[in-house]
Order: sequence, then C-alpha cells, then structure tokens
Amino acid sequence: MERIAVGVLGATGMVGQRYIANLENHPWFKVTYVAASPRSAGKTYRGAVENRWLIGADIPASVGDLIVEDANNVEAALGKCKFVFSALEMGKDEIKALEEAYAAKGIPVVSNASANRWTDDVPMLIPEINPDHTDVIYDQQNHHGWDKGFIAVKPNCSLQSYMAPVFALQKAGYPVKRMVVTTMQAVSGAGYPGVSSFDMIDNVVPYIGGEEEKTERECLKILGKVVSGKIQNAETPVVSAHCNRVPVIDGHTACVSLEFDLPEGKKPSLEKIEEVWTAFRGLPQELGLPNAPEHPIIVRHEVNRPQPRRDREADKGMAVTIGRLRKCNVFDIRFVALSHNTKRGAALGGILNAELLKAKGFFDNL
Amino acid sequence: MERIAVGVLGATGMVGQRYIANLENHPWFKVTYVAASPRSAGKTYRGAVENRWLIGADIPASVGDLIVEDANNVEAALGKCKFVFSALEMGKDEIKALEEAYAAKGIPVVSNASANRWTDDVPMLIPEINPDHTDVIYDQQNHHGWDKGFIAVKPNCSLQSYMAPVFALQKAGYPVKRMVVTTMQAVSGAGYPGVSSFDMIDNVVPYIGGEEEKTERECLKILGKVVSGKIQNAETPVVSAHCNRVPVIDGHTACVSLEFDLPEGKKPSLEKIEEVWTAFRGLPQELGLPNAPEHPIIVRHEVNRPQPRRDREADKGMAVTIGRLRKCNVFDIRFVALSHNTKRGAALGGILNAELLKAKGFFDNL
Amino acid sequence: MERIAVGVLGATGMVGQRYIANLENHPWFKVTYVAASPRSAGKTYRGAVENRWLIGADIPASVGDLIVEDANNVEAALGKCKFVFSALEMGKDEIKALEEAYAAKGIPVVSNASANRWTDDVPMLIPEINPDHTDVIYDQQNHHGWDKGFIAVKPNCSLQSYMAPVFALQKAGYPVKRMVVTTMQAVSGAGYPGVSSFDMIDNVVPYIGGEEEKTERECLKILGKVVSGKIQNAETPVVSAHCNRVPVIDGHTACVSLEFDLPEGKKPSLEKIEEVWTAFRGLPQELGLPNAPEHPIIVRHEVNRPQPRRDREADKGMAVTIGRLRKCNVFDIRFVALSHNTKRGAALGGILNAELLKAKGFFDNL
Amino acid sequence: MERIAVGVLGATGMVGQRYIANLENHPWFKVTYVAASPRSAGKTYRGAVENRWLIGADIPASVGDLIVEDANNVEAALGKCKFVFSALEMGKDEIKALEEAYAAKGIPVVSNASANRWTDDVPMLIPEINPDHTDVIYDQQNHHGWDKGFIAVKPNCSLQSYMAPVFALQKAGYPVKRMVVTTMQAVSGAGYPGVSSFDMIDNVVPYIGGEEEKTERECLKILGKVVSGKIQNAETPVVSAHCNRVPVIDGHTACVSLEFDLPEGKKPSLEKIEEVWTAFRGLPQELGLPNAPEHPIIVRHEVNRPQPRRDREADKGMAVTIGRLRKCNVFDIRFVALSHNTKRGAALGGILNAELLKAKGFFDNL
Repeated sequence: MERIAVGVLGATGMVGQRYIANLENHPWFKVTYVAASPRSAGKTYRGAVENRWLIGADIPASVGDLIVEDANNVEAALGKCKFVFSALEMGKDEIKALEEAYAAKGIPVVSNASANRWTDDVPMLIPEINPDHTDVIYDQQNHHGWDKGFIAVKPNCSLQSYMAPVFALQKAGYPVKRMVVTTMQAVSGAGYPGVSSFDMIDNVVPYIGGEEEKTERECLKILGKVVSGKIQNAETPVVSAHCNRVPVIDGHTACVSLEFDLPEGKKPSLEKIEEVWTAFRGLPQELGLPNAPEHPIIVRHEVNRPQPRRDREADKGMAVTIGRLRKCNVFDIRFVALSHNTKRGAALGGILNAELLKAKGFFDNL
Repeated sequence: MERIAVGVLGATGMVGQRYIANLENHPWFKVTYVAASPRSAGKTYRGAVENRWLIGADIPASVGDLIVEDANNVEAALGKCKFVFSALEMGKDEIKALEEAYAAKGIPVVSNASANRWTDDVPMLIPEINPDHTDVIYDQQNHHGWDKGFIAVKPNCSLQSYMAPVFALQKAGYPVKRMVVTTMQAVSGAGYPGVSSFDMIDNVVPYIGGEEEKTERECLKILGKVVSGKIQNAETPVVSAHCNRVPVIDGHTACVSLEFDLPEGKKPSLEKIEEVWTAFRGLPQELGLPNAPEHPIIVRHEVNRPQPRRDREADKGMAVTIGRLRKCNVFDIRFVALSHNTKRGAALGGILNAELLKAKGFFDNL
Repeated sequence: MERIAVGVLGATGMVGQRYIANLENHPWFKVTYVAASPRSAGKTYRGAVENRWLIGADIPASVGDLIVEDANNVEAALGKCKFVFSALEMGKDEIKALEEAYAAKGIPVVSNASANRWTDDVPMLIPEINPDHTDVIYDQQNHHGWDKGFIAVKPNCSLQSYMAPVFALQKAGYPVKRMVVTTMQAVSGAGYPGVSSFDMIDNVVPYIGGEEEKTERECLKILGKVVSGKIQNAETPVVSAHCNRVPVIDGHTACVSLEFDLPEGKKPSLEKIEEVWTAFRGLPQELGLPNAPEHPIIVRHEVNRPQPRRDREADKGMAVTIGRLRKCNVFDIRFVALSHNTKRGAALGGILNAELLKAKGFFDNL
Repeated sequence: MERIAVGVLGATGMVGQRYIANLENHPWFKVTYVAASPRSAGKTYRGAVENRWLIGADIPASVGDLIVEDANNVEAALGKCKFVFSALEMGKDEIKALEEAYAAKGIPVVSNASANRWTDDVPMLIPEINPDHTDVIYDQQNHHGWDKGFIAVKPNCSLQSYMAPVFALQKAGYPVKRMVVTTMQAVSGAGYPGVSSFDMIDNVVPYIGGEEEKTERECLKILGKVVSGKIQNAETPVVSAHCNRVPVIDGHTACVSLEFDLPEGKKPSLEKIEEVWTAFRGLPQELGLPNAPEHPIIVRHEVNRPQPRRDREADKGMAVTIGRLRKCNVFDIRFVALSHNTKRGAALGGILNAELLKAKGFFDNL
C-alpha cells in the first residue's frame, strides 16, 4: 500500500516535532508537507528547528530537507498532502479560522489544538471511547458546504489518564456520578519553552491556566451522544479538578476519588473493577490500528506505582496505567492513573484519530 | 532569664539536626545534651555528623563540641538537661519504651516520633488548635505514677497544611463533614537518606508508606475533646487522602476539596472563609510564644500560589499559606494549602509545643 | 544618617527584583524610584510584577506602591533619586546609550549589565580585588564632560567563584599562570523565564551563550592596573573555561585546575594556600561596608563540599566557599569553588560596589 | 544457533537488573541462572525484586520465574549456565575471591565489578580499544591452573565518555600528553538507592568517592600493551579528573581540555580531529557484534549538545557523543563528551565484552 501524504501545521513547535518524530516509520502515513509561522517559511525543516530539535537525538532524515511553508498559505498545501495534522500555536480564533480554511479547500484537519473542541459538529475523539462521534463529520461538511474537508479534534491531555478508566466502568454498567481529580502534570504539556526551570526546580506550581475547566468540561462531550448530527454532552460525571505542574518531563499522573451513580448493593467490588479495566478493549483494538495499544488499560499491583518515569512508555506510550486501586473513605473508590501526555495525550493520540478516520474511509477519494 | 537546659534524642538524624539548628538562638531553651545510637556515642557531635550535616552550612558551635551519649542510657541524661526533644529513629515499640523510660526518670519528652501518638493520655498538640489537650498530662502522670516526667507529641507533618484551616472554619461555626485531600510532599519528610534520587528525578511516587492512614486518623484526635482524662476523638471530618512524594526539598502542598456539614443556606461564602482564615489566631499568638507565627494562616490571591519554594518560609516557616480558594464542583470549596514540613511540621512545631508547655508551667520545678 | 534615594532601572526583571528585595532594609540606600520598559510604565510596582514576583514571598511594602516609570525617560528620574542601579535587559547598544544618558544628566549608574564592561574608562569592580579602579571615574567624567554622573559596572557572575581565590594567591606572591575552569551554573543566572524546564529536568546543558568568552576575558580587566586614566588589562592568568547549566536554582560551582607562574621550589604548599585564603581580607572588610562578608573566602574540609544548596548562603551569600583543595596531576593544584550568583554575583555585588563608591565619596554632592 | 545459557551474579541490584533487561532478546545469550545475596535466595526473581524493579515497566517474563540462588554457593551454578556476568555488590575482597571461585570451577566471569580491575593478568576491556588484551587470559588460566574458567572485566563508567575519543586520536597518530577532565555524572552510576534525593534536588555534589582515582588510573591500563602475559600500563595521557554528581538519571557528561604530545606544526586541526572521530571503527564493528554501535563516536555540531537526556540513547546507548569541539586557551583542544553510563558504561558494555569473548572463541568447549 502506498502511504498517504500528510502535512503537519505548526511543524516546528514541540507538538509538531512530535508528530514528525512519531510518523517517521508510520505504515499508512508519510510526512510530505510541513508548515509553520512566516518566520520559518522558506527554510529547510532542519534549518528551521536548528538548536531547537527537542525530541531525541535526530530529525528524521526524510523530513529534514523539506522546505517549510507558511501555514497561513493554504493554497501551498494543495497537491502536496492529502490531509494535515494541526499542531498550530496561535490565538484560538486564528487557529479556528485557519483550520476551517484548510477544510474548505478539501484538506481534512486532524487537530491537536483546542480551538475547535467546542464546535458542536466537530468530533472530539478518543478512539476507544467515542469512535461513533465521527458521524457528525457528515453534518459538519453539509453545514459548511465542504466536499471532502473536515475537522476532527482530540481532547486535552490532562484527562487521558482517567477518561478511559471511567468510560470502561460506565460501559460495564457502572455509571460514575462524581469525582475529585488531582493531576500532577509534566512540563512537556506546556510546550517549549513552556514552564521556566526557575519555577520547576525544588517546586510545584498548583495552577495551569484553563486546564481545570478543560478537563471538567471536555469529558462530558467525549461521553456525549450523537443526536441529529450534533454531539449532545453527557451530564455526568461531575468532575472537580485540581491541576498541578510538577518537575516531570513526560507523563501526567492523576489521583482520583470517585462515586458511582448506583445504590449501595449494586456497586462493583474492587476485583470486579480491576476485571473490567483489564478486559477493556475498543474499536482501535478490534481494527488493529497501528498505534492502538494492545491493552488500553493496564492495572499494576505494586504499592508505589504507577510512576511517570517507569510507566509512561507502557504499550508504546498509548496505555493508561492504573495502580493503588482501593476503597475511598469519602466516595466509593480511589486510584492513581497515569498516561503519556505527549504520546497518548498529544501526537500519537492525534495519529490514532487519523488511523480511525482512515479505517472508516474518511480519507478515501481525497 | 536563664535558659532551660534541653536534650535532643536522635540528635544525629535529620530531624535531630533540625532541632539543634533551630534551637541555636532560642530565648528559653539551650541544647546541653545530645544522644543518639551507640554507633555515635562517645564522639563529639561535630565528629558524629561529619560529612552528614544536612542543615545549612555549619553546625552550631555550642553543640559541636558536646559529646554524644547513647540514647538508650537514660541515666546519662540526669542532671544534664531538664527535658528532651525526641527525634528518635528506631522501631516503634523501642521508641515508646524509651520515651516512657525518660518520662519515668522525671524527664519530660516532647516528641516528634509517631510511637506515642495513639496513646490516649498523650496529647498530640498543634498549639493553635488544641492547647487544652495538655490537660491529659496530669492523668498520664497519675496513671504511670510519674512525678514530673510526661510525654507530649506532635502529629504527622502531612496534615499541618490543612489542619489549621479546617479548625479555623469549625471554630467559626462552619463544621466540615468530609474532604478529599491530595498531598504533594517534600523529600525531607522522609529523613536522610530517605528517598533515592533515582526515584525523584523526572518522577513522582504516588505512595508514602503509612502516611494516608496517619493523616486520616490523626486529625480526629487533634480535633477531639478531653473527657475524663483521656482524649476522645472527633468523628468528623471524614478524610480521604492521596499522599504523593514529589521532587521538592521542603514544603508539603495539599489540594483540598471540602464539604461543610451545614444546610445549603448556612454555608459560608468564599469571602467569609477568607475572613475567617485571615483573622484566625490561637493561644500561641495570645501568649506571644517565641516561635508562634504572627499569622497562622496566610491567604494569597495570586493565581499560581502557594508554591513550596516561594511560600514555605512564610512567617518563619510556621504559617500555613493558602491560595486558589474557589468553589468546588463536587463539594463546597476547594483550595491549595502549604506548610513547611520540617519547620512547622517537625522541629519548630515540636519547639512550639515545648514553648506552650513551658508557658503553662509544665517545666516548672524540674 | 538619612538614606540616599536610589533608583532601579529594569526593576521588574529578575535582577531588578533582587535589587529591590536586597535593598529593603539597607542602612545607606532607599529605593525611591523604579523604572522599566514602557509596557510596565504607569502601573504600580506591585501591579507590574503581579504573578511574576520571583524572590521569596512578598514585594517589599515600601516599593510596591511606587509608580513604575519608563526607563527610557531619563528626565523622570531627576529629583527622584540620587543614583541608579542598572539591571536593564535590552540590546547592548541601547543599554550603553541609556546608561550614558543617565550619567550625562548627573545620575551615577552602578550597573549589573554587560554593556559597559569593556569601556576602558569604566571600572569593573570586585571591591575586595580592585577598589582602586574607581580612579578611572574621574577620567571617564572628564572625557565625557560629565559633572557628577558616571558609570561603574560589575563583572559576570560566573567568575565570582574563582576570582577572589586567584587574586588572594597573587596578592600573597603566588602569581597564577593558567587555569582550566569548568563551571556548573544555576538557572537563576539566566534571568526569568530563562532556561526552559524541559531543558533542565534530568539534564545538563553544556553551553551558555557568550559566558566562556566573558569569564576568560573579564578576569584580565579586573586584575588590570590603572594607567593614565584607563584600565590596562593583565595578561595572566590564561583561562580556559567550560560553562555548563545545571538544574540548580542559585549558586555557581567551579572546578578549577591551576598552574602557578613560579619555579618548582617557590610554589606554595596546600597548607600555605589555605592560610592565604582564610586570611584574605580586602578594603570592604577594612571599611566595614554593610554587605561586605566577614570572610570573603571560606575553606571547608568536608570531602563533599562546597555544594550549592548548602553553601551558597555563606556569610549572607557574599562569601566564596572553597573545598577539595588538592594536588593536580596536570597542573599544581585543583579545587572546587562556589559563590551565590544572584547575591555576590548580581544584586548584592552591585550594592557592595555602590557601598564602596559611597565610602569613597563618589555620591557626595549629588 | 542455540543461545548460550548465562548466569547473572548480583542479579537483584541495579546493575544486575540491567543485565537481565538488556539480555532479554539477546541473539547469542539467554539468562538461565540468577544469584544474589542469601536474603534473596530461594525466592522467585520476581518476588525478590518486588517493588524494587528499577528498569522500565516490567521484569522480563522468562526471568521472573527463575529461583534466585545464593551467589556464594558456586556449586549451584554448575550445569545451569556456561558463564556468568558479575554485578556483585559486596566488599572488594569478597568479590575477588568469589569471582575467582567461579573461574576455578570452570565458569568464566565477565565482570562489572572493580575488584579485579588491577589484577595484571585480568584484561580490562573496551572492545573498540584493546580487544587484544584478551591474550592475557591464557596466562591467567595458566597461572591459576584453571582449565576453562577466567575473569575479564570492564572499566569504570566515568571514563567511557572520553576514552574512545582519546584512543581514536592516538591510533590516528596524535598521541595525547595530558588532559583535565571534569565529569558531571548521573545518579544511576551510584546504584540503588545510591544518592539521596535530599542531596540531588537543587544541588550538585562535587565528589564521588574513589572515582577520580579510578578514572585517572584505569585509562593507563586500557591503553597498555600485553607484554609477556601481563598488561603493561601506558604512561600517558596524564589525567586530572574532577568528578561531580548531578541531578541526571542516566548519562555521564565530561568537559575535556587536552594537550597533544606533538610539536606545534604536527598537531591535528579541528577538522582533522572530527574526521578521525567520525571514521573511527574497531573490532566490534568489524565483527558485527550484536551490541556494537555502528558509529562508536558521533560528532554533533549544535552549539548546545551533547546533552544527557537527548544524546544518551545514541546508537542503542553504545555510542559516545561529542560536541563543542573547539580550541583550548590553555591546551590544544577542548570538547564535551557524553556516554550512557548504564548501557555503554555498565551492563551493555559488559555484554559487548562477552560478545567479543564469544567471537574470539573463549566460550567454546564450555
């Protein structure tokens, strides 16, 4: 099979670099187009990120020699790639307008940005959870009069750690009513240069602008239903989030206390919960998508796990690792959940979305 | 006034060193006696902690030349000090027995160890909260047939961050029903060598052995009442704690979500809560104890505070700093609270206990 | 004595903040004027640094309410302060021009910036080493036709760790021929936000732009002589510097291997060297300047010292701490030296310069 | 080809764990035997390292179920493995005796320990540098009257960063006379628990016991010649080492200033040096040993590289990465070199030694 030509918008930023690194040997997709701010335009990719390549040792050779285009120049992408990953870093309104401009020109946009997360006919996908949300894409296209282009997004990285465990429980018949979540988030989530080292050595910052609101709201859309071509948000679980930045490179850890929406006798035992999590599989596993983890949820029994440095790479950085499952004094259960914020939570998560869209035929006939 | 001669048991360990550093210029107390394990006994204090002095640059000159005694040899302390601070690091049962042996010999023990925290006639003191718990000391002495000796302890460092705020609310007429607390605790809380650097660089460890149980239970004793010579534990608040170790030297941070035990219309507003916290004072402030902070609770308004490195030293390291007070989606309010675990939470907290005991006359006639 | 009214240029940056924090209770100087970029101008100082105050917990009350002026508007400073500390962060040429403009208006400039370090009639002062370099100020004033204004600067922070030890040896008759210096420098040296946390967690960056050149050259001017109103650089020691950034908040550590410019029999023993360092005093000690350390050089004997976190605060952060003095296989001796880069190496060093200038009468008649 | 059965002594320690992790899919060797202290003996390997598995997420399944034997019981290994990797952590004399006991029983020992590094008929191997030193093994066997058993060791991890570059230059005709080396070493080099986190957060420790002596001496044996069945040490280069511990998980960085033993006109240019390094290959590359890096030395041109987190994994963690090659003011050249201390510098380095020995036939007829 010939690999599909893809572009990366915002290719020189941290998330853009991760798309490029992660796509290096992708079986379905091949980076043929890179675009960034006018400042980088005209340089080779290698030249544009010189002394600023952040991911491992080396820039993939096949991308290093590509000439960076101005991301604002949508025309330039035509004929050079079939769809684009958006890792744009600009104002929200500019991103929204630009992503729509690409879609309007027939270039689907698989986005990591938050600009279109709350557009109600744009699906916010976690492929194990809501793969059916891609249905709204047709309405999105109708509404805009777009022929082949569309926009699909992924949620904020902070909720990747607990979203799959919660969904797995709900799917097994154990709806969650409310939860208190405290996250300890890695600095890579803030991009580059992101958080100053002066704030992160011998310190914790108990605040990440906008993060708590995102994590509290986005889960309701992800768990929503498609109703007449739009996504109708779920009403539970109610989440109260405390988001903290800690001196960790990669891997968001969440401490979760959770209450079921079930009468006392109907609540699952800890054994049952572990069984549900361990057995959990979704459409990506069924379809065998290239970046689908074999086990979307891994349960560990060591008393002091999961830990970011030890568990973030589990199943290619795409699994959620859970530990310390125990009774909660205040709610029903509590546990610690961890996921890799720049793999599952950013670039690889976006690539998995694209794999789902490809498998469902959304990239046919481009 | 002549300073009272005091001893430090476990003087070579991390907490012991902090007692010695913090007592250097104390107006009431003077370290005249140091005891540790048999391994250190017979050496000068300077020699015993050589290459292992952990607190700032230098060993206080007046203590460096003292000869370290074997802490197991209670007789050796007689005549050399009036009371002792216990920072012993041994098995729980050994510590309990040894602290009792000192008390039996007429030497009061102001302890940092956990061994006697659950002895029901031993007060577990936070002087701003339960100074009246010293009343059980008389019953303790009667019960053992001790003349002048007694034991008083301080609680675990992890709850110092949220105990004063909760008590201040309860005292103002706003009882707390339940709370979910997630702590991010400094490595100094584990003593020395404590946590391996291999576990703390680019990492978080979501587990501290025994800590969650301590923090959940100890608050109930602290908030308890003296009933017929014993402390009767409170029944609320119910606490669910998630305790984490993070790469911070000093300062425990707690994210708290809290529900009042009040009907909807009676719950305090955020403004009222801040007012209560800011106005909170206790007996140490009234008595002007040397290490009493002027403001036991400091409320900050910056969006990203408190932070351990910036706020731990507030009011000599004895204040709790609170920030991010806001509504909770799940309970009533949420906030972040921080205190210095080795000052308020360990040595200085123990010294403040001793100051309270002194002011109440417990060290008279020794 | 009434305190002299002083201004701080670049008052909102990290070094500017440190000047303000360190001058809070200064016996001779009082901050009455703060200036920064046009962006901050017109705000209160408190408002201008909101959520960005980096030094300890709180902004000094007396400065918080001052209105920030535009540093480019030299006129605004007239009548509001007698001299200024420059912590400007702009292009080198702009800083040079602006510092000269203040001097031209009769306002002396005591600068932390590098812009005027190589102006040959501007003294680059370390008061213990070259207090006589202030002599060139008269020529500087003549040359420009300035009446009362002038410029004096301090050197780069990286050389503070080894400059005093080298000078002390030379002064004692042991000239140094050449040295290989490897520094491990704290992130605060890069200002704020400075180095990204993504570069400093689990990492070392073996490069600091321009730092090696500065450290190699500036020592020659500091050790130079005043010849006909200009500073004539010394020719030795020849320095080869390797400058690294490490995950440390404050305190630059230097590993030094050094060769004397003496025949074999004339070289000092390790004992002699220690004696020279321990006995070293300079004019600031003689004059009793407020921020002069009692011991400019402290020699430690523990095998594993100096360490930044333990030794940086020695003697108010103004001393150099040396350890591990031993024979070098390749040269004569090797040792580790440490100084506080933002105290001795920046704001307090600048303040000590001002104290020297005051003591010498350079601020009389302003 | 059937894989050779190998044992790991000290299998539960940090280096032992790394041997087990790195041998998981080795094409030639298969771990069939694990031995450790009596404390672990009798447990499954999985049970023995429970809550203490340090390397990535999971224990290799094939090893987890092996029963740990007492390493002191040499007999137990007979018939269970052909040769052993020694990662013993005991007193030097005990290790020496025990390694000899295995060899005496016909079990070759490929050791990571320092106990036999200075035994003059034990080769200290870096396969790219001194593969011919295996010649002394025959004399070692003769001397002891051993039939098949023998001991071969690897050097200290600290010199791996600069040994290959120095050797490559010498081999190309540019002998090195002397060098000043300052290392910034990762905490994993100290084993587990190793360095306390209290010493490594916001700090640098400018001392590693015994390390400077090792690094200065061992290079002379590695560069030595086999003369009448013994290794005769080289006399140059003379090394002066400053060894520091920094808050980095893996990867030792060395700043090197170096002088050639050549007259001025004969010294190589920077271009020539880079050419020599880039072209450098050794016997492991020629033989295609499984863990031989394709490029033993990688030269980078970015101004701020190598960095531990970005470069340590280069070429499977087996390459040395060099950057910042430039003229030295004091000697001839200076540069920064980095290698992975637990891959090239420990377990993988030991495995490469075993691969060399295997390729040379030393494991035939066991």
